[in-house]
Amino acid sequence: MASASPLHAEASSEEYARLAPEVYALIQAWMRAGEEGAPVAPYATQDEYRRHLRLRLPDEGEDDAALLAAMREVLEHSVNPWTDRFLAKLYAAPTVASLCGDMLLSAMNASVHVFSASPALTMVEEECVRAFCGLFGFGDGADGVTMPGGAASNTLAVQTALCWAFGGAYRRDGVFGLVQTLTEQYGRTGRGARPALLTGADSHFSVDRAALAAGLGTDAVVHVESDAQGRMCVDALARMLEEMTRDPAHPRGMPFFVNATSGSTVLGAFDELPEIAALCAQYGCWLHVDASWGGAAVFSPRLRGTLLRGTERAQSITLNPHKLLNVSHQCSFLLVQDARALTEHAIHAGYLFHDPTTAHVADRAMKTLGCGRRGEALKLYLTWRRVGTRALGEHIDAGVRLAERLLARIRAHPALEVGPLAEPLFLQICFRPRAMHAGAARGSGAAHAIYAALQRERRFAVDFAPTRDGDYLRLVVHPRTPPAVYDALLDHITALATAEKTTPSC
Amino acid sequence: MASASPLHAEASSEEYARLAPEVYALIQAWMRAGEEGAPVAPYATQDEYRRHLRLRLPDEGEDDAALLAAMREVLEHSVNPWTDRFLAKLYAAPTVASLCGDMLLSAMNASVHVFSASPALTMVEEECVRAFCGLFGFGDGADGVTMPGGAASNTLAVQTALCWAFGGAYRRDGVFGLVQTLTEQYGRTGRGARPALLTGADSHFSVDRAALAAGLGTDAVVHVESDAQGRMCVDALARMLEEMTRDPAHPRGMPFFVNATSGSTVLGAFDELPEIAALCAQYGCWLHVDASWGGAAVFSPRLRGTLLRGTERAQSITLNPHKLLNVSHQCSFLLVQDARALTEHAIHAGYLFHDPTTAHVADRAMKTLGCGRRGEALKLYLTWRRVGTRALGEHIDAGVRLAERLLARIRAHPALEVGPLAEPLFLQICFRPRAMHAGAARGSGAAHAIYAALQRERRFAVDFAPTRDGDYLRLVVHPRTPPAVYDALLDHITALATAEKTTPSC
Repeated sequence: MASASPLHAEASSEEYARLAPEVYALIQAWMRAGEEGAPVAPYATQDEYRRHLRLRLPDEGEDDAALLAAMREVLEHSVNPWTDRFLAKLYAAPTVASLCGDMLLSAMNASVHVFSASPALTMVEEECVRAFCGLFGFGDGADGVTMPGGAASNTLAVQTALCWAFGGAYRRDGVFGLVQTLTEQYGRTGRGARPALLTGADSHFSVDRAALAAGLGTDAVVHVESDAQGRMCVDALARMLEEMTRDPAHPRGMPFFVNATSGSTVLGAFDELPEIAALCAQYGCWLHVDASWGGAAVFSPRLRGTLLRGTERAQSITLNPHKLLNVSHQCSFLLVQDARALTEHAIHAGYLFHDPTTAHVADRAMKTLGCGRRGEALKLYLTWRRVGTRALGEHIDAGVRLAERLLARIRAHPALEVGPLAEPLFLQICFRPRAMHAGAARGSGAAHAIYAALQRERRFAVDFAPTRDGDYLRLVVHPRTPPAVYDALLDHITALATAEKTTPSC
Repeated sequence: MASASPLHAEASSEEYARLAPEVYALIQAWMRAGEEGAPVAPYATQDEYRRHLRLRLPDEGEDDAALLAAMREVLEHSVNPWTDRFLAKLYAAPTVASLCGDMLLSAMNASVHVFSASPALTMVEEECVRAFCGLFGFGDGADGVTMPGGAASNTLAVQTALCWAFGGAYRRDGVFGLVQTLTEQYGRTGRGARPALLTGADSHFSVDRAALAAGLGTDAVVHVESDAQGRMCVDALARMLEEMTRDPAHPRGMPFFVNATSGSTVLGAFDELPEIAALCAQYGCWLHVDASWGGAAVFSPRLRGTLLRGTERAQSITLNPHKLLNVSHQCSFLLVQDARALTEHAIHAGYLFHDPTTAHVADRAMKTLGCGRRGEALKLYLTWRRVGTRALGEHIDAGVRLAERLLARIRAHPALEVGPLAEPLFLQICFRPRAMHAGAARGSGAAHAIYAALQRERRFAVDFAPTRDGDYLRLVVHPRTPPAVYDALLDHITALATAEKTTPSC
């Protein structure tokens, strides 16, 4: 049937039949180029990209060839994760099953806000939530939702905890209602009648952003010191909790939320959950575990019982399958121990929710503070089916073994020094050359010199990170990345560090 | 090179080369089935879906055939937008250019948080933001970001306005800092020292959720009455603003934010922006325009000067290309008049932002309260190139013409009655049969009877909506949907309403 709109000039299935194979070929060639040695990025500087990439939004539409050229242009000006040499972030190349999932999501174009609009995707999300809750040791009353990223999940955790802890007073009157509750029911006064979040000094900045987003302000976040291995100091946490709780006018406020990190951004440190959970129970705090990075270790039976021991006592957990499970962006989950907490902030909209019961809410937009959502759980679902639970655990274990071997190699090399490390080691190694070019740069300067050289060369992308002992290169060990890539990188860095300095002749 | 992880057992380009054509064929067949008359959904009730769709997350991985079967199963248990008969929501089938964009995004797997990780996608987003800001009449200092949905954009607008209006005091101390500012600098007292958001009674519930998310509480939202056509009453808004501003102890607080709606969810009403903007200027309020649905009318030179007149005076605008421009989910933009406002809530993270200048911030995560983001602007960019600016305007105009014709048809039919309508008409028509089966159900009951019958039959998906005059079927006129579909739907509804009632014999 004919559409009156120029957007729909021909049957979509025909346009798709014509274009999809071309796009697929384009992508496949780009993947292969990455696998076969292409640079990790086409340019080294922002200026170069801005000079070379010419975008345009034309008045008149373009034909297939021009559209395909536009797509090729975007690919050719992008970081190529298929090189396996993009090691700068906590994500790497995605699973092919995710790519398939994205193709389906796009074709279904369903919003996972009400069941009737997205029945299968709703059930897929429910299934993944159920499985994760089981792995983390949550009880039958648990629930969860996907969110567009770890920061969004962490923020929803803070908002959910506020609604749950302070109920209708917070819902209606926000932070004001909360101050009133803290004053009237807890006998708090002055600045002591403000709610406070406690988190480790090494936690992700999204915890601070969550406090800002939720109207508590950045001063509401108490950064508890961490130990040399990047873990929040449990003793310091205990002291802060006791001090803040005992003094009703404590200038840092009243603790209501503790964020523990399972897999910190720089070191990959895991906070000690059983001890922290005990403190949270004692002081009546919501325990949130930001396991955006490290949560995937739950698939490894060994790590589940060590690094992740205690998750079953958390009130909420953030987990990003788009990081360590190689699901494509975005795929993040917020899991909550008590399903009822997730609908505490529900707002009824008659034009949307036709069955506003909160007992078993199949309309999942009731569980977020947003409305429409992409069905991102599908990409995890397909990856999980493709790989299986057991192999997902082996994937993590393989990564940790590789990290241990690389650390041994770095430690054994006289030209390299390691920085602060998580204990036990997870998947990050902070290291740097002791010196560049027989002393031209040392310490942080040596790390920056290598970073700059790698940026220029575009063969490897590796980030640097500040630590308590200065700046280091942060090696992220992605389990999917072939070990040979890391060996080549280490060879190259030591060569760069020990080579004679080549000064351009004037 | 060999990976140590079972997730990466073969070269991705080979796995993709094998699977992508199969997935593409699966999708293409599903699209075609939709175009050729398949039901809009396979089942009528949640129970049926839960009985028939068997999901599983196996211990052992599955081969290609099983993975493809899992994908087919998901498609077969989903709403099929390619039928053109899914008319229940403010989105429809997406452009094929979006589908191509999603394939690329998935393969690039870049997070648009820092320029170095996503150079081309950062520039694509910048280009789309620039073009939209121009169309809406924003000045050179404007900026914007994509967000995962209109609710997220509206929420970021509230948070941005708070940071902008109350600066460091809000950043540090959140709502407390804001009360202090209102008390000390504005002489407000008691409940009057709380910030208030004003919005039309017909606005989207995400404005209430944004107030809750930002820690202001739902009572901070003042719902200004709307007229019979769904527009916020400007006189009532003026009275509220004057009253609340004059009384320093006003129980509803101090106005700081007005949300105007361009294209409301039920009626498609457009608030009168020039008058509202003048009031906002007079009372020092941030004017946000929630143009999630109606903002796409900016492509029509005629509607830009009528329905959208005054956007150039807004401080921020939400626009969802995933609605009326048929870009696939999610694709939403928040545009701001003053770029500096977007970085007011930036929090520095040394491990992420290596160039933390705020003048021209290419690291776009500085502009949101989140961190990683999918490069959703690419799907708009490709759709725009495919169709061109001019035809995007014709797309909207064609939709409005179609809505006008359908309204005339409904009005002319003795068995149908129209409900409240926007004036001028946009793309929604609320209507219902005057009665079912010679009087078996009337009014809202007749609307519900048709809704239930359509649900059962699964040929058309149409939602109902509450209005001031009772419940009506809400016809959403999607410009891309062939006019013949709407004619068939109207024929069918009148047939359902006027048919003899068939009572099952006992």
